[in-house]
Amino acid sequence: MPLFRQVAIFGVGLIGGSFALAMKRAGAAERIVGVSRNPATLARAVELGIVDAGAPSAEEAVRDADLVLVAAPVAQTGAILSAIRPFLRPDAIVTDAGSTKSDVVAAARTALGDRIGQFIPGHPIAGRELNGPDAAIPDLYVGKKVVLAALPENRSQDVERVAAAWQHCGAVVHRLSPEEHDRIFAAVSHLPHLLAYALVDDIAAKPHADLLFQYAASGFRDFTRIAGSSPEMWRDITLANRDAMLAELDSYLAQLGKLRAMLVAADGAALEAVYANAQRARHAWISAIEASEKQSQSGGD
Amino acid sequence: MPLFRQVAIFGVGLIGGSFALAMKRAGAAERIVGVSRNPATLARAVELGIVDAGAPSAEEAVRDADLVLVAAPVAQTGAILSAIRPFLRPDAIVTDAGSTKSDVVAAARTALGDRIGQFIPGHPIAGRELNGPDAAIPDLYVGKKVVLAALPENRSQDVERVAAAWQHCGAVVHRLSPEEHDRIFAAVSHLPHLLAYALVDDIAAKPHADLLFQYAASGFRDFTRIAGSSPEMWRDITLANRDAMLAELDSYLAQLGKLRAMLVAADGAALEAVYANAQRARHAWISAIEASEKQSQSGGD
Repeated sequence: MPLFRQVAIFGVGLIGGSFALAMKRAGAAERIVGVSRNPATLARAVELGIVDAGAPSAEEAVRDADLVLVAAPVAQTGAILSAIRPFLRPDAIVTDAGSTKSDVVAAARTALGDRIGQFIPGHPIAGRELNGPDAAIPDLYVGKKVVLAALPENRSQDVERVAAAWQHCGAVVHRLSPEEHDRIFAAVSHLPHLLAYALVDDIAAKPHADLLFQYAASGFRDFTRIAGSSPEMWRDITLANRDAMLAELDSYLAQLGKLRAMLVAADGAALEAVYANAQRARHAWISAIEASEKQSQSGGD
Repeated sequence: MPLFRQVAIFGVGLIGGSFALAMKRAGAAERIVGVSRNPATLARAVELGIVDAGAPSAEEAVRDADLVLVAAPVAQTGAILSAIRPFLRPDAIVTDAGSTKSDVVAAARTALGDRIGQFIPGHPIAGRELNGPDAAIPDLYVGKKVVLAALPENRSQDVERVAAAWQHCGAVVHRLSPEEHDRIFAAVSHLPHLLAYALVDDIAAKPHADLLFQYAASGFRDFTRIAGSSPEMWRDITLANRDAMLAELDSYLAQLGKLRAMLVAADGAALEAVYANAQRARHAWISAIEASEKQSQSGGD
């Protein structure tokens, strides 16, 4: 028997569409319906076989659903949850795929009220440079982390069912509180995006920008790859995770202040110590990733 | 007739070794001798056929050479030039492959004195993540830029011959003054290296570093790839190009100050404008690179 009878997915692009494809392949969902603000997107998702049907309204999407995944831009989460609340079955589980969690939880509390226990916040750490239903692939989550940021109000068997759904997609489930999640991702994802955008914008604003870009090479290309991401999405993430990002930015500015002083003093030993420590830490990190990838491959799925 | 009768290469690793392999393949050098501080490295370069022979001294390397390439770490350039000066033929051309140019020119003026006209500063914009003779490949420079930062004392026919050597390696030759070169590379290469090292060191120093690295994903991996570079090499580059790097760092710190104020004010429109401008500029840059790569491929060689 499939894990879920009917899954409703709000947002049938890369994230929601890949979840649908993976759940179907695993036989973990009997039927999947999609919802999108954009009728052409929804039609395309149906055409590609990502969802079994498009639902014309929130009511039709969720009234028979035992799992709802919100995979729309984070800023829409509150409105979607408000729209589905009146039609949600008492035994339905709702989860999301947003890149920030504290703000999503706050929006969910407002939107769902005393039904907040049905909402289990989640964040799959996976992506591609492409978007939309055509970018969806069943393998997107294989070997990737999914963070579940469960609430005190959640029933543990519901959390286990959401975890099982992601495991059916090939993902490795981790647990963090919403606050831990946001502090961690401010450091390793949100701040780096801001730094990359800031550098490219700074260079583009210089009078000799064309000359500079002419000599930018592969190191610059990799360093700034994340500055090719969606400005709207990252504006929302920046605002949603503002406090944690400010803390990380201030820590980084203090670090740059120290490096600036080393430059002024021409302190080669101090600069080399920072560079060498960073190189070592990065090397250890990459080695750990590669070891864990090897392990998950030999473990099979 | 080959372009050069005897080429002497100081430093037979990735950069010098790849130059040797490319020059030989093009039939542009009759004989290539290598010099290295490390006897095992030199023996390996001979064994791999990168150089025809290892020279046991600077004198033996250069007394019959009509081209000398210094492809050793930048900080050694002055000492190498001082060592070869007494033995340099009057018609020999000397060039280098250092990542900074103003400091190299200053060291060359001191080392070569009235023979400075024989030194034509250069910088091939190419690399791999590997080092040493085993990393050398004849294709390293194909389609890559080489900057020549000629001096007023250089004879134009000598500059042309160095340009021709790099063209035989498949490279595209550009001309900049040493000062222009250093300002440009401070912005698009040297500062990004410092920023990446700074971020990884900052994260590694936090008490919950292990947890942070555990959730770092592909965006972080690309952003910090250049923090895997050699700390010694980048210490030298940082010190050698200190003034230009300080200017770029201060420009970037002012930019981060503006973004910080936008964060504090929760000014989504201003943040989105910076992000969107960066995304546009990066997209235009990538498109220009791809167009020029397509053009150079269809031009063939």
